[in-house]
Amino acid sequence: MPPDISVAVVDAETPGNVGTIARAMKNFGCSDLLLVDPPPLDPEGEAYGMAGHAREDVLPTAREVTLDHLVENYHTVGCTAVTNEDARKHVRYPFRTPADLADSLRDVTADTCIVFGRERVGLTNEELGRLDEVCAIPASADYPVLNLGQAATVVLYELRELTVADTQLPDGPIERADEAELEGLHEEFARYLRSVNHPEEKQPKARRLLRRVLGRAHPTGREARTLRGILRRGNGLLEHPERLRDGEDE
Amino acid sequence: MPPDISVAVVDAETPGNVGTIARAMKNFGCSDLLLVDPPPLDPEGEAYGMAGHAREDVLPTAREVTLDHLVENYHTVGCTAVTNEDARKHVRYPFRTPADLADSLRDVTADTCIVFGRERVGLTNEELGRLDEVCAIPASADYPVLNLGQAATVVLYELRELTVADTQLPDGPIERADEAELEGLHEEFARYLRSVNHPEEKQPKARRLLRRVLGRAHPTGREARTLRGILRRGNGLLEHPERLRDGEDE
Repeated sequence: MPPDISVAVVDAETPGNVGTIARAMKNFGCSDLLLVDPPPLDPEGEAYGMAGHAREDVLPTAREVTLDHLVENYHTVGCTAVTNEDARKHVRYPFRTPADLADSLRDVTADTCIVFGRERVGLTNEELGRLDEVCAIPASADYPVLNLGQAATVVLYELRELTVADTQLPDGPIERADEAELEGLHEEFARYLRSVNHPEEKQPKARRLLRRVLGRAHPTGREARTLRGILRRGNGLLEHPERLRDGEDE
Repeated sequence: MPPDISVAVVDAETPGNVGTIARAMKNFGCSDLLLVDPPPLDPEGEAYGMAGHAREDVLPTAREVTLDHLVENYHTVGCTAVTNEDARKHVRYPFRTPADLADSLRDVTADTCIVFGRERVGLTNEELGRLDEVCAIPASADYPVLNLGQAATVVLYELRELTVADTQLPDGPIERADEAELEGLHEEFARYLRSVNHPEEKQPKARRLLRRVLGRAHPTGREARTLRGILRRGNGLLEHPERLRDGEDE
């Protein structure tokens, strides 16, 4: 069983960022928000304004704590955009990326707290030195510093496999056609090629081309059946053009 | 070569969200921002306030375009939290997750545009029906709707391998100790066990225990050397306690 994941924000300046973090927590299945030296969170203000539905639970149940409390009670992971370059310094090295962090926590049961720092300067070296692990989001070398709320969103997104039991998405992202449905479509296409007098020597090449296109697209059953039906309709009219004149079809 | 990735926002209501998206674009190596029916973007206002360094380039070079322009000129990917359940409807099905999208675009060279909708209702069925692909972020079934800026941040984060040439992070996340350094540490630990008169029959078990701990932690060279040095210092004093009295050490 993966660990319970709490989120802490140290010395945030902007209530809106606390709200953004609360929303990301609810979006990705976390609920325990811990605040060290927080700004005032006015229920009419920006924190609640940015929190979406997390204004109903995550934000009102947030607890004010100290950094000592985090260090003493959790496996702590400090997030920073700025790492050390190598092992000469250990405040910000080694680090894990959010994806690596998710992997490494999968089989750990300790209560874990992901710790984010203040907007402008993040966590201080002294704070980070007290935490157990360092996590850094890979970003553009030109501008690697994410906004606090956006950084938390990315980290919580990556941890979702540990925290989200059920997503909103249907189980399989694609309900692929079975082979019989696809072969039926291919046969109807072959019939179409004959119906439109596509040069006979080119027909195998055209059939292969469609096979490659559909082979990459993995059509759904409905897509395969619909396309087959549309081709069949054309084939019927091409083979019996008199029906076209009568306004009939197959 | 992966595709050029543009980002479009359709009918955003809040300038701050446009700024948040611009910042995420710069964080993750994108620069081409296209706006359909945007709100006014006052250089003194929220969009620029939220954009960080993207206020210098992404935001001032953003272009106002139509949805037709996107459909005609790009491989379009519409982002939504709300998918159809199965292949009975094709407006929002099949869909790809952001990670799948990144994989699928890796070998495609077409100019690609990731399209985000308005804050409250996202993209309409009519808009989404005109786009080539659908992308949905897996999130908690209890509350799967991300804030617009946060959704864009997650999608652009996942596409970073296509758009970010160099991250701010050093190449390897860990500069692991070589085996000789680790074995040196293990030998020093064995010497320590003898120095403190750890019961002889328990020494192999204790050595295995440390081997497991360090085997999981993959210490850096510096970590291994430092721990070895600290143990050696203790061993020297344990073996020559007279040095303790003299205030000397090994």
